[in-house]
Amino acid sequence: MTTVLVAAAPERARPGSGRIASSAGGGAPEASSGLRSELMALGGTVHDGDLTVEFRQTDDEAELIHWLGRAVESGWGVVLDPTGFTHYSYALRDAAAAVTEAGLPLIEVHLGNPGARDDGGRSSVISAVSTGVIAGLGFDSYRFAVQAAAARVRAGVAARA
Amino acid sequence: MTTVLVAAAPERARPGSGRIASSAGGGAPEASSGLRSELMALGGTVHDGDLTVEFRQTDDEAELIHWLGRAVESGWGVVLDPTGFTHYSYALRDAAAAVTEAGLPLIEVHLGNPGARDDGGRSSVISAVSTGVIAGLGFDSYRFAVQAAAARVRAGVAARA
Repeated sequence: MTTVLVAAAPERARPGSGRIASSAGGGAPEASSGLRSELMALGGTVHDGDLTVEFRQTDDEAELIHWLGRAVESGWGVVLDPTGFTHYSYALRDAAAAVTEAGLPLIEVHLGNPGARDDGGRSSVISAVSTGVIAGLGFDSYRFAVQAAAARVRAGVAARA
Repeated sequence: MTTVLVAAAPERARPGSGRIASSAGGGAPEASSGLRSELMALGGTVHDGDLTVEFRQTDDEAELIHWLGRAVESGWGVVLDPTGFTHYSYALRDAAAAVTEAGLPLIEVHLGNPGARDDGGRSSVISAVSTGVIAGLGFDSYRFAVQAAAARVRAGVAARA
């Protein structure tokens, strides 16, 4: 059994600003707060063959950190959508580092493209400790990240067998 | 017919340093210069159903810029692996911006994770104008990026039809 936790931080929703930084180019489906809500509404738990995906979202940094600790204990891969925490939460970064230091994958995802945000929030304090980053691809960001995390959990299990 | 150009900048190969910044965590296949060479050796052109993928690599910034201009003229999606140019080439950034401003997808990819590089080269001047970014996932970075670019070219064509 392979489990991937999809953990999302608070929505970026302000009056008159429902949308996250939209993707440039190519008629892509735009990332929106609504999309993340829809994804989370799929959860708690989705089973697909030998893969279990747990969807969780919280506004509470402490709860996110707790979930990442649980993932380490349980040998889960993690897909982390850090939203606003991306740019400053060194506490979340430490929790993410504990995942990858345990030999488990942590894929940082963003529905929108933080590099395109016009509010100066271009840098991520999480990326330095993450396995990889997928940004700007809307629902595909999550889909690819779950695939990548699951493959790496399986490869890690195989390497230890 | 949908075409995606996979354009890669110079290898990061120094004596005694064949590997690009390796991925953290999860027993992932590590990104290596060798991997990029293998991918490029697959090229020039691979056909898969209605999808054509053109693999090209060059050490010449001017040639990369020329290729992106051709992609705009031809209505191709682009997967760009800017390697060392990532951190300073505003000329390449302008060429990338012309792709997304034309309504075509440009997915920035990195086999390794630039956020994990220990040489201070954490920032990308390309990301602000790209559709999205996939980093740190080795071969999966390319595979997911080609899928994402192809889907967005098809969606754009459908939107204009």
